[in-house]
Amino acid sequence: MTLRPKYKFWLETDDGYVFGEGSFEILRGIQDKGTLMASSQELHMSYRHAWGIVKQMEENLGQAVLVTYKGGKDGGGGADLTPLGTRLLHLYVAFTEAIDQALAGVELPGNSSLTLPRDPSSLAL
Amino acid sequence: MTLRPKYKFWLETDDGYVFGEGSFEILRGIQDKGTLMASSQELHMSYRHAWGIVKQMEENLGQAVLVTYKGGKDGGGGADLTPLGTRLLHLYVAFTEAIDQALAGVELPGNSSLTLPRDPSSLAL
Repeated sequence: MTLRPKYKFWLETDDGYVFGEGSFEILRGIQDKGTLMASSQELHMSYRHAWGIVKQMEENLGQAVLVTYKGGKDGGGGADLTPLGTRLLHLYVAFTEAIDQALAGVELPGNSSLTLPRDPSSLAL
Repeated sequence: MTLRPKYKFWLETDDGYVFGEGSFEILRGIQDKGTLMASSQELHMSYRHAWGIVKQMEENLGQAVLVTYKGGKDGGGGADLTPLGTRLLHLYVAFTEAIDQALAGVELPGNSSLTLPRDPSSLAL
């Protein structure tokens, strides 16, 4: 049996939760696809739910992460990230990559792996 | 307004959740106080709830993290950690300290701090 380290990471202000994995996926999808609708569809998330996550993020930041516009090449309008929205994407990547590297580099006390032997008496502590 | 990085960390096996902050506090309390009752009281947690967390941990590990005994100096019995229980405490500390250090060491892209200026146009990305 193997133990795996797991984590959830997020950013918050004094006003509360701002940005976690869901927010990251939504904003990355907007950067990629150009609309909140396309981003939410790709994530199998309702438009309303994705919109709520963005609105809460902007409320707790006190600043916009999206700019929406009408028209565009398909005529249906779209959304771009503000500089703050792009910065949040970068921050999330920087922090989660740092965590991943840190977890991979942990020198485990008394045992070279996280695998639990069948005989617990052989765990050197 | 300041953005703060936050995380939750836990260990799991293929059978599910094994060990997180609550488990850590319970097992550390047992190591310190000698009984699950004293540990749960210190955490303002019901004995039943603390017991449930320990039982789920042992079920998903397939191994015991506590040994209980009768009698002892106060006559009421008590609990000790097994070597596996002690090892889980050490693992949790090693991983969370590694994460804390990693987060503190992140070089933020385009800005030396996580403070959001009032004028978002001054965010250098």
